[in-house]
Amino acid sequence: MINSKPLKENPNLFVFLPIYYLVWSDTLLTNEEVDLLKDLLSKQSWLKENEKTFLLDHLDPSNPPSTDDLKLWLEEIRKVLNKDQATSETLADIGIRLVNLHQDNHTANNVIQVRDNIHAIEERLGLISKESLYQFMPESRKTIMQQRKTQQNFNIDTLAKILDGEHTDIINQVKSVLSDPSFKYIETDSLSEYREKVLQWCQQLAKQGFGAMGYPTAYGGKDDMARYFTVMETLSYHDLSLVIKFGVQFGLFGMSIYFLGTEKHHKKYLHDVGTLQLPGCFAMTETGHGSNVKGIETTATYNHSKRSFIIHTPNSQAQKEYIGNAALHGKMATVFAKLVIDGKDYGVNAFLVPLRDANEKTLPGVTIEDCGRKMGLNGVDNGKIIFNEVEIPHENMLDRFASVTEDGKFHSPITSDNRRFFTMLGTLVGGRIGIPRSGLSATKSGLTIAIRYGDQRKQFGPEGGAEVPILNYRSHQRRLMPLLANAYALHFALQYLTNRFLTRTDDDIQEIEALAAGLKSFATWNTTQSLQECREACGGKGYLSENRIDRLKNDTEIYTTFEGDNTVLMQLVAKSRLSEFKQEFSNMDLFGMLNYLAGQAKTSFSEMNPLIVRKTDEEHLLDPEFHLNAFKYRERHILTSAAKRLKRHIDSGMDSFDAFNVTQHHLIAVGFAYIERIILEQFQLQVEKTEDEGCKRILKKLCQLFALSQIDRNKGWYLENDYMTGAKTKAIRKTLNQLCWDIRQDAVPLVNAFKIPDVLLSAPIAVKG
Amino acid sequence: MINSKPLKENPNLFVFLPIYYLVWSDTLLTNEEVDLLKDLLSKQSWLKENEKTFLLDHLDPSNPPSTDDLKLWLEEIRKVLNKDQATSETLADIGIRLVNLHQDNHTANNVIQVRDNIHAIEERLGLISKESLYQFMPESRKTIMQQRKTQQNFNIDTLAKILDGEHTDIINQVKSVLSDPSFKYIETDSLSEYREKVLQWCQQLAKQGFGAMGYPTAYGGKDDMARYFTVMETLSYHDLSLVIKFGVQFGLFGMSIYFLGTEKHHKKYLHDVGTLQLPGCFAMTETGHGSNVKGIETTATYNHSKRSFIIHTPNSQAQKEYIGNAALHGKMATVFAKLVIDGKDYGVNAFLVPLRDANEKTLPGVTIEDCGRKMGLNGVDNGKIIFNEVEIPHENMLDRFASVTEDGKFHSPITSDNRRFFTMLGTLVGGRIGIPRSGLSATKSGLTIAIRYGDQRKQFGPEGGAEVPILNYRSHQRRLMPLLANAYALHFALQYLTNRFLTRTDDDIQEIEALAAGLKSFATWNTTQSLQECREACGGKGYLSENRIDRLKNDTEIYTTFEGDNTVLMQLVAKSRLSEFKQEFSNMDLFGMLNYLAGQAKTSFSEMNPLIVRKTDEEHLLDPEFHLNAFKYRERHILTSAAKRLKRHIDSGMDSFDAFNVTQHHLIAVGFAYIERIILEQFQLQVEKTEDEGCKRILKKLCQLFALSQIDRNKGWYLENDYMTGAKTKAIRKTLNQLCWDIRQDAVPLVNAFKIPDVLLSAPIAVKG
Repeated sequence: MINSKPLKENPNLFVFLPIYYLVWSDTLLTNEEVDLLKDLLSKQSWLKENEKTFLLDHLDPSNPPSTDDLKLWLEEIRKVLNKDQATSETLADIGIRLVNLHQDNHTANNVIQVRDNIHAIEERLGLISKESLYQFMPESRKTIMQQRKTQQNFNIDTLAKILDGEHTDIINQVKSVLSDPSFKYIETDSLSEYREKVLQWCQQLAKQGFGAMGYPTAYGGKDDMARYFTVMETLSYHDLSLVIKFGVQFGLFGMSIYFLGTEKHHKKYLHDVGTLQLPGCFAMTETGHGSNVKGIETTATYNHSKRSFIIHTPNSQAQKEYIGNAALHGKMATVFAKLVIDGKDYGVNAFLVPLRDANEKTLPGVTIEDCGRKMGLNGVDNGKIIFNEVEIPHENMLDRFASVTEDGKFHSPITSDNRRFFTMLGTLVGGRIGIPRSGLSATKSGLTIAIRYGDQRKQFGPEGGAEVPILNYRSHQRRLMPLLANAYALHFALQYLTNRFLTRTDDDIQEIEALAAGLKSFATWNTTQSLQECREACGGKGYLSENRIDRLKNDTEIYTTFEGDNTVLMQLVAKSRLSEFKQEFSNMDLFGMLNYLAGQAKTSFSEMNPLIVRKTDEEHLLDPEFHLNAFKYRERHILTSAAKRLKRHIDSGMDSFDAFNVTQHHLIAVGFAYIERIILEQFQLQVEKTEDEGCKRILKKLCQLFALSQIDRNKGWYLENDYMTGAKTKAIRKTLNQLCWDIRQDAVPLVNAFKIPDVLLSAPIAVKG
Repeated sequence: MINSKPLKENPNLFVFLPIYYLVWSDTLLTNEEVDLLKDLLSKQSWLKENEKTFLLDHLDPSNPPSTDDLKLWLEEIRKVLNKDQATSETLADIGIRLVNLHQDNHTANNVIQVRDNIHAIEERLGLISKESLYQFMPESRKTIMQQRKTQQNFNIDTLAKILDGEHTDIINQVKSVLSDPSFKYIETDSLSEYREKVLQWCQQLAKQGFGAMGYPTAYGGKDDMARYFTVMETLSYHDLSLVIKFGVQFGLFGMSIYFLGTEKHHKKYLHDVGTLQLPGCFAMTETGHGSNVKGIETTATYNHSKRSFIIHTPNSQAQKEYIGNAALHGKMATVFAKLVIDGKDYGVNAFLVPLRDANEKTLPGVTIEDCGRKMGLNGVDNGKIIFNEVEIPHENMLDRFASVTEDGKFHSPITSDNRRFFTMLGTLVGGRIGIPRSGLSATKSGLTIAIRYGDQRKQFGPEGGAEVPILNYRSHQRRLMPLLANAYALHFALQYLTNRFLTRTDDDIQEIEALAAGLKSFATWNTTQSLQECREACGGKGYLSENRIDRLKNDTEIYTTFEGDNTVLMQLVAKSRLSEFKQEFSNMDLFGMLNYLAGQAKTSFSEMNPLIVRKTDEEHLLDPEFHLNAFKYRERHILTSAAKRLKRHIDSGMDSFDAFNVTQHHLIAVGFAYIERIILEQFQLQVEKTEDEGCKRILKKLCQLFALSQIDRNKGWYLENDYMTGAKTKAIRKTLNQLCWDIRQDAVPLVNAFKIPDVLLSAPIAVKG
């Protein structure tokens, strides 16, 4: 085109070159648009007929310019570009300068007169001048997105100290042990090699006293449960098979002896458990009974003449299943079985049953099968255990809560079999604290990997311009920033739970059990969700084992199931909330309560005033009081309505079991609403008490993000119940997106404050920037 | 208590026994409630002082009855139970019969007179008589939940035929090959053994002509792309490494030669590709460029003197990564590289580059590294490829869309480098059909396992009563039934996509590309979500590798990333929708369009009339027209508002790249809304055209469930935009739950209609009931 005769004869035609370039290089221009352009051209009265024909011919899709032509046009256009004020020009301006270039510095008047005309063509085509101009000089383009970078707005060490609390010493100690070359991750195809390695690691940790940390000093421990939990949590930056093997031995097995046994058991076993000289198992779950453990069928039949118990697996559904440490290493197990005396069933009790002799051969009557490969945690040797009339002495009953007397009678300070069993389980609630804390560490590892990668990985950019870090994309931020806020929120909530547990009394143990059940569920589901997002956020790199997200994800996958299936636990939480409800109204009779409930719906809560329902200014939307009120309102309202629904169903003659089932979805929401309020409350308290200004500022933002992302998730509920208007939930979404955009700059420092040693992260994509 | 003196002296006291039993066996009774009971007892004027003292003493928590006492009380109570009318009695009634039992058949009048009084105590305690009575005779309890069972409401074979369409022959052929003992799943720790096995499987399939199915008959194929897709889909009931290895060879590698090459390439290679004599790779992705493939940096520099190209990897970010078949078996690769002629860049083109010689040794200049272990698909040998000035002859350029002429000039029928590259990619869109169909098969396997297990696995039940299949629990249904509906919905939607692809023309190829991108994203995310739920729904059993959910889950995990990252694809869909938008208004000028958009918000759509917004009767909520209107309204509204937001930002001077970023979350919703409408539309068409009454009925229910579960998911949006009231979204939730409850009976037959051979499912927990 450029060197064609008509252009040489009339350089004025150059005025169309920028538009023609865009037409042929644009991948989106449609036939209709080309037709529109043709139509406009034919109306330009200043063009001669042969010029029109020429121009129209060059719009014919069957006769396109060559690729080289197009490149030449661009070169031509670039000659006249004004790089400094590029964005204020129109295509017509450039066209006119092209005309000048070819016409000895004076432009024909008719071309200048049609400048607006040409500009109108641009507009009709929907071309945006500024955007079009960038196609000519992409390098001049600067977007906000390209400028967004990691910044240092607070002191990372100070924030790390806030997270670690008073346990910096033990955390550093564990990290230093794990960073030793002997703890290098194992790369092997072989299951047996992997399991052996994990056992060795456990032995090393035991040798240094980490396993016995929670046991009384008399038996080699430090009597320090707080530090024991911290050890579990810190170990979870390493291989999670190690953590679970460790937890089975020193937590489940050891703590069952400690909490369900009496001094004679402590004296005899705890020392050897703590040093791993006595590897053991916790054999509660059976094939047929996992969630409903009260229904297990293994029997422990008392034989008074021999003062012994016969442990027996009556059918295949009663075999102990998924038992950690069983397939290879366990020498003894705490076995839960129904105690039978004189043909009478006294409910589930716990017994110590030897499994293997000193040569690691299984003992007579004991059959163990390997559970084989699992989705994850393959360094742990899970097995099935079947007992065929295995005899154990009287002293092997863990007899803190129940015993068989000298004269062969059952004795317990707790009358009801049910209540006794749940009291026993209650002492083991520590598992529901250790597991979410372990899962949170894995989440932190995943977030560290994904966020550091997102900060460095660049992909796409403005057409022709430099590429942009993927963490600058809003959708990427929306995926990861709320999860980062969740991780911080859960850190403080799980610390609160731990403290409550450590200072528990008989009066608040039930509340703490509900708290543990709920936080365990919320936190482990959050782990699954977070690691899923981290995998996707790292794309193909996230799929390679070298970057460890696969391990973290597969290993923690079972966290939502073991130590209590999350769905079941959330219903437990809800039932506990309903019973607190019952207590609160215990001074009302049934009808009084029913009337109260009916009235509740009409009650106009103070937060429900129409002004607040509609309020959308940013100050209000970021106000902690607004957040907490919203959470509390939901918690209260959802609990009340669940109670009402239950009553209504039962009153109408429905069986209570059916009524609970019909309401199940609602009850799970009750559990969530309670736990979410607790988490927010604790996070807000932490923000308030933080003294360092930089840390306070960023923690406050994270807390706001946590609150708003939960409200946004539940916005359907808030709208359904007229607590917010649509305008308000839309404003919340906007504020939420803005918070993510703001926090993005702090994201890398925020994960660096987790202080996970690089050797433990061990992900090539997570190198520090 | 029973044998105590006061009871013997005054058997009237027996009237309290049922209440006392409940007090001591209840695990939830609080101190306040015990106090309340004490208070009420002390007010019973018919009791003597010593009797009151006796009764009060027996409520003292520090002096509980023994466990044996409690068992005796229960035995005593059971003596007088009236099993036939159990549920209509009060505790007082039973108490009075106990008095009779001990008092020679005539009850003291004063006891009968206080019957109401005692009943009042029951009520004040919040005990529900019926529920309490079940504690005495749990075996008499029958809940609706215990009665819910799998039923046969339609003919499974007929439904299977509807799903298979016209491809039953090839489906059965593939299933029969896969059921051969030689296709037994491999159980090995060793990566190399696994990869070798998968290669062998591929060879067996190639031998039977499955690989070449889509190629022209001249080169050993059947010219049948439809059947090729069906083969991929059916293979996906087997090991997914096999499917991906198969897809890389016959799909990616073979189809790139077929669609990007010309006859000379077809003649020379296609036959050997189809028989797997020439194993090959598809080398597009680079370390630095995965989503933004236009930015790849590998170069193919033309050397005119030798009529050859030099393929070169200029830096480590430009190495080809994740390339399937590369680490071990590939002998040649289709390599995407920037063509450079005389120092000018002609954009990305495709070249055939030999990798290994006949002895499987890598050729000079080619370096291949193993990607190592991955989260899944470990039977596929992914590798990195680095080229160091590898020379290939001129004929190795795949030259359908671009070529270098005899005189060394670039030639292409498509002027723009961009447009040419996207045209090339467009021919490869088949991958975005094969992958979601493969993922759907994996989803069907997972659902078959989880639903059959849920139908048989029992856990919990009414206190003391028989346990209940977990699929009878509402929360379990809510987890799985909507996913079952999604699987059916996607089956028909992906068939529609396949048909559109097979009958494509130049005019609708862009629409089909958007459709494929969107359905690929929706379907593969659905696969991830479904298999996650299936794992959790199977608890510990779902974690054991023997039940295969782990493999299905980990293997398909990358489906959301490869063949296009889902988040990126959904934005492509949105952009395509916006450009259709632009077409629709191409006869308006910019201001006209802007005004139209502004007006749009105020437009009252016909469905927006206040009556319909509020309508909550079941007939309306289940009406397909209501569903489709709601989907369409959302699709239209969300697209319009996204366009408006984009314009507003750009008009205010924001860079378009920034504007798209700020709107990113919104754009992804545009993609979803479009795809969801397509899926619903196709499902409804399928229901309409189904003739068999039984199948039509169940498909209709599944379609309703699909529609309502999507609406429920998006209820926040519908409420925000006043398309529904809170009362309506609540009614929808209720209807949704009811649909899940109804479909539960059909769930096992519905997964059985997928007709996945048990030997392929290979999950012990998925045995047919």
